[in-house]
Amino acid sequence: MPADAKTETKVDVRGAVELLKELRSLTADENGAQRLAWSPTWLKAREWFQSKLRALPVEHHYDAAGNSWSTMKGKSEMALIVGSHLDSVPNGGWLDGALGVLSAYAVVKRIAEEYGGKPPVTIRLVDWADEEGARFGRSLFGSSAFAGTQTIEADRGRTDSTGKRLEDALAECGVRIDEIGNAGVERKNAAAYLELHIEQGPVLESMDLPLGAVTGTKGVERHLITFHGQEAHSGSTPMNARRDALAAAAKLALEIRPIAKKHSDSVCTMGSVKTFPGIVTAVVGRCEATLDQRDLDADVLAQMYKEAQEKSRQFAAEENCTVDWSRIWSIAPEPFHPKLIEFCEEAIAETAGRSHRLPSGPLHDAAEVSRSGIPTAMMFVQSLKGISHNKIEDTREEHLEQAIVALDRLARKTMEWIETTGTRE
Amino acid sequence: MPADAKTETKVDVRGAVELLKELRSLTADENGAQRLAWSPTWLKAREWFQSKLRALPVEHHYDAAGNSWSTMKGKSEMALIVGSHLDSVPNGGWLDGALGVLSAYAVVKRIAEEYGGKPPVTIRLVDWADEEGARFGRSLFGSSAFAGTQTIEADRGRTDSTGKRLEDALAECGVRIDEIGNAGVERKNAAAYLELHIEQGPVLESMDLPLGAVTGTKGVERHLITFHGQEAHSGSTPMNARRDALAAAAKLALEIRPIAKKHSDSVCTMGSVKTFPGIVTAVVGRCEATLDQRDLDADVLAQMYKEAQEKSRQFAAEENCTVDWSRIWSIAPEPFHPKLIEFCEEAIAETAGRSHRLPSGPLHDAAEVSRSGIPTAMMFVQSLKGISHNKIEDTREEHLEQAIVALDRLARKTMEWIETTGTRE
Repeated sequence: MPADAKTETKVDVRGAVELLKELRSLTADENGAQRLAWSPTWLKAREWFQSKLRALPVEHHYDAAGNSWSTMKGKSEMALIVGSHLDSVPNGGWLDGALGVLSAYAVVKRIAEEYGGKPPVTIRLVDWADEEGARFGRSLFGSSAFAGTQTIEADRGRTDSTGKRLEDALAECGVRIDEIGNAGVERKNAAAYLELHIEQGPVLESMDLPLGAVTGTKGVERHLITFHGQEAHSGSTPMNARRDALAAAAKLALEIRPIAKKHSDSVCTMGSVKTFPGIVTAVVGRCEATLDQRDLDADVLAQMYKEAQEKSRQFAAEENCTVDWSRIWSIAPEPFHPKLIEFCEEAIAETAGRSHRLPSGPLHDAAEVSRSGIPTAMMFVQSLKGISHNKIEDTREEHLEQAIVALDRLARKTMEWIETTGTRE
Repeated sequence: MPADAKTETKVDVRGAVELLKELRSLTADENGAQRLAWSPTWLKAREWFQSKLRALPVEHHYDAAGNSWSTMKGKSEMALIVGSHLDSVPNGGWLDGALGVLSAYAVVKRIAEEYGGKPPVTIRLVDWADEEGARFGRSLFGSSAFAGTQTIEADRGRTDSTGKRLEDALAECGVRIDEIGNAGVERKNAAAYLELHIEQGPVLESMDLPLGAVTGTKGVERHLITFHGQEAHSGSTPMNARRDALAAAAKLALEIRPIAKKHSDSVCTMGSVKTFPGIVTAVVGRCEATLDQRDLDADVLAQMYKEAQEKSRQFAAEENCTVDWSRIWSIAPEPFHPKLIEFCEEAIAETAGRSHRLPSGPLHDAAEVSRSGIPTAMMFVQSLKGISHNKIEDTREEHLEQAIVALDRLARKTMEWIETTGTRE
């Protein structure tokens, strides 16, 4: 394939894969990638990346939220943005985020070479700050500041596990929390955003496909559900005298599956169950369960949420318990741009023969960009065993190379589209 | 009722209730009873009790396991033992154990008065050491040493939450762990054991009965069940690609109920569920659940255990998971003595008009005594709301008084039985 790829396009797939490996050896230890945002290792990764950018005819700066921008001015100010994030979770994988940044680097390099540094439209490469939110629990930090969906007041009080404040960690990296909204100026002239990412799920592998066109990011309803029954002695309380909060939760744990399966791409997950008092000799008096529901269709998501609530009340009543719901977090679905999804499918089909459309369950910076009104598309490349956020995260090298070629094709199509429809200001 | 009771018998019911209240004011704080075994408050309770015993014509000593024995020698050496335990859980109730000891005191006092200190059979009052096991996790400490079922080697390594060793706590109270088996000498001439205890469950209250005759203590099978599935991202993993360990556990949490309900007095309880990684965004990869199964019939208990195992394997297979079982603890059922249960029913019926037979789910010192071959019976008095091990534990004063009267009647019947059948040595 690499040989074929080279005859198809000038994008330097081997160079991008080598850069990924170089970054891995610089920022991973025996437990995986350690590019935790706002940490010394993350700053080292960014410095290393800047040293690579010096080979390109781009202007570089960090915006008010710490996003890294490299701009190659084109004949039109209308800009194609390509990128992803260099930060990782602790003990993370080598590809999550980094693949998108370094394949964008290859694309920008190809464009720079093809147009002698002056492409028809402006090309920008972005490395978003703190996509993962792994340290302070605020994911999509930089891209939401860019999109104008930042939540400074809520974020100001955030601390990491050592009690260190997000605000102080930002300041040490030159970011002032009160000013992150100024990152919105980077939206000027943005005409499209493209992001390549590993799937982090098992769908493409199960279909034996290297690449997929992402239709959007699913909306999420995330709730804490507490069933209240009556703690009672396991030995002295007859079965018919119990108010077992666990039984109500168990019924819901099973019921969320038919609720999800009514819809083709919906997911519902009970990820945490806590029992109180939680001892072997007591009927559970209180049971706390989390529910995470996702779908790309806002109506489907609302319907699933409603059904889960109704069922939880039914089960609570059946078990002579009561139930409370408390929203942890929710976000609306974000469908990507229809024309760009079409280009993405074409680019994939031209590269790998077959394509497939799939929604993204995990959120991505692309969702924030899209939410701000900028036409957006994402491409997924197969993840081996669907595993991510783990040192064993991996993708076949052949698939990485196909992904970079396909992203380059998608960039080409999108540039043409911006040129021909480029009235956006 | 108190007026009636006084005309029926000479047992000093008011005095016993007053002693219970005196003990409560001496050893409880705003959070409840604090007579934790081997603690200063427990020792204070025992000293107080000894000061009361001085009013009776009894010889007193502590045995090698710290059990307190007060003996009134009778014409026959064959002994009726009556008692319970003065120790409590932390923040416990005023009646759990203490009712049995102080009502036994009233019975012994009545016998002493009736027979001028020389009853036809020997009468012994016992206050068992550390029934609750609340501090070191070893319940029935004193009564199992008496019964010869002590487990010194296993107990030697026990520590409390501060790291203090059981062995050292015992030594401070004058008990040498290597010698506790010598408490077995107290079994000599024991002809019967009687214990009055609060029910600690809701059965008698639900039947509007003050008193019940206990048929025995249920056997217990207590296991840790671990379902192994596959941790996976809640957003990116389709429903049909999941190996959800929680789903398998939830099925079992519901299935143990029909398993228990096949038998009239069986109970099955899943008291603790732990999910791993236990976060809102991950399908549960591992789920640990506890199962506590109890029945008075050993065959029923074995059948329930087998059914739960089979069902757990079926559910694991359905969810593409595996399952491991690990025994936490088990004990055989201990049915009480048929003749003494009959006397207990008669004594209750004569006192309260109606009686009811019920097994005990919680273990009691009486089970250990019975296990050693001594004919044993227990009487339960109604617990309000079935609540125990809590400062709100309570019983209506009218019921306490009926209980003391009925225990006294039971003692009378049992003494006659020992006299007439007293060939036991």
